Amino acid sequence: MMKGSLLYEGKAKRVYHVEGQPEQLILSYKNDATAFNGKKKDQFEGKGRLNNLITSKIFDYLKQRNIPSHFIEELNDTEQLVAKTTIIPLEVVVRNIAAGSITRRLGIQEKERFNPPLIELFYKKDELDDPIINDQHAYHLTDVNKAELDSIKDKALEVNALLANLFKQTGLDLVDFKLEFGRLADGTIVLADEISPDTCRLWDDKTGEKMDKDVFRENLGDLISVYKIILQRLEEHTCAK
Amino acid sequence: MMKGSLLYEGKAKRVYHVEGQPEQLILSYKNDATAFNGKKKDQFEGKGRLNNLITSKIFDYLKQRNIPSHFIEELNDTEQLVAKTTIIPLEVVVRNIAAGSITRRLGIQEKERFNPPLIELFYKKDELDDPIINDQHAYHLTDVNKAELDSIKDKALEVNALLANLFKQTGLDLVDFKLEFGRLADGTIVLADEISPDTCRLWDDKTGEKMDKDVFRENLGDLISVYKIILQRLEEHTCAK
Ligand SMILES: Nc1ncnc2c1ncn2[C@@H]1O[C@H](COP(=O)(O)OP(=O)(O)O)[C@@H](O)[C@H]1O
Ligand SMILES: Nc1ncnc2c1ncn2[C@@H]1O[C@H](COP(=O)(O)OP(=O)(O)O)[C@@H](O)[C@H]1O
Ligand SMILES: [Mg+2]
Ligand SMILES: [Mg+2]
Repeated sequence: MMKGSLLYEGKAKRVYHVEGQPEQLILSYKNDATAFNGKKKDQFEGKGRLNNLITSKIFDYLKQRNIPSHFIEELNDTEQLVAKTTIIPLEVVVRNIAAGSITRRLGIQEKERFNPPLIELFYKKDELDDPIINDQHAYHLTDVNKAELDSIKDKALEVNALLANLFKQTGLDLVDFKLEFGRLADGTIVLADEISPDTCRLWDDKTGEKMDKDVFRENLGDLISVYKIILQRLEEHTCAK
Repeated sequence: MMKGSLLYEGKAKRVYHVEGQPEQLILSYKNDATAFNGKKKDQFEGKGRLNNLITSKIFDYLKQRNIPSHFIEELNDTEQLVAKTTIIPLEVVVRNIAAGSITRRLGIQEKERFNPPLIELFYKKDELDDPIINDQHAYHLTDVNKAELDSIKDKALEVNALLANLFKQTGLDLVDFKLEFGRLADGTIVLADEISPDTCRLWDDKTGEKMDKDVFRENLGDLISVYKIILQRLEEHTCAK
């Protein structure tokens, strides 16, 4: 496994080519934390490792439950091997409980439950601050068609059910999360990017404590110790089975 | 026809009860112009009359083409009689050509064509600046169900086809417009509110000149003379038939 040249660098990860494997990439998780579309920034020693290990555990869990994804394997503490995709520039957000931007945007009370879960699409475009869009916008702005978008939403709801169940077993409520999907060389759409406390809202189901990036967004305490608890609980869960 | 008490006053119209007719209302068009959610304001002598007469002509035209609406009749220069509805707090926007907010929000070039026409839903709530929403939000925030929302969208596209045709015959391109729908006492959903150069974008199909509220929004010239031309062209069209 030879790390090739840097393909691109995002806010949370660097993406590298793999020598001799044009259909694979290495995702290298950084220690950077950003919020409010990059307006708030910091670095946390150990964050890259925690998000890499948490994401790997979660994608493993999803793979075992037949969710096709880009994930191949964990390479080391901060890096994972994935299938190269062309990312569809959509952030697919699933909400079980109201929190964050939706409470301000639509005047919905924090903690209100969405039943069925609410799906929101955002156009992934930093210059435009990732605006919220509807299905017709998605057809206009990306290359997905209706059947593909419907199947992306079905997949997102399936992932939601699986993750809500996984986290519940570790004493956490899955409030909401963001997914990205990409196309493999043959056009197939698979789940890509990361699933970590950077991209999920997780609340302790006893105390209601926020156990995710909101700790950073809202200056609630020590991010690293919270992310460590998430990893630990996921590891205990995996071993307990 | 006895005008009763004021039910409510909006940015563009006053709404009155009708003595002895609890299922009817009088819409009284004001001379006020507002833009950017009330941040820009002015008054134009004659505007109330023009919008009342233009809206009446358009709702008459739609009624003749079997679009059920709240419109009953023009009462005088600035007032019309309508069926009382409970307004569904959605602004249903249909776009044939990109202009205005969507160009900034999604980085789409002004004048780009949408084919099929694009429908956008906004939650009608001044305090929240009328945020854009998706279908699932609409089910959560209002009392419409899926069948009703689908039929509202079908109706909006039907109105679009009819109005695009009407305006084309008067030398105008229908760029976009906003509709509101309300429920009659029996729950039936009908087209309501107004359809005027305040709620439509209309471009002269020869010169490209803006012939609508953008004249006010963008300080392009004399609003009243532009609205007069719209009324005149609609009147000529009606007589020519
Ligand atoms: N399997 C994949 N193939 C190609 N690109 C990917 C894959 N998984 C994730 N990416 C992309 O890697 C980039 C870097 O990730 P990240 O640092 O989270 O970026 P961002 O700043 O856009 O959030 C993002 O554009 C993300 O969409
Ligand atoms: N048939 C109707 N029944 C009840 N309300 C109506 C009807 N038609 C329009 N309205 C409402 O009348 C109010 C006044 O109109 P307007 O001045 O345009 O208000 P706004 O400031 O909300 O745009 C609006 O809330 C509009 O939705
Ligand atoms: Mg990212
Ligand atoms: Mg209005």
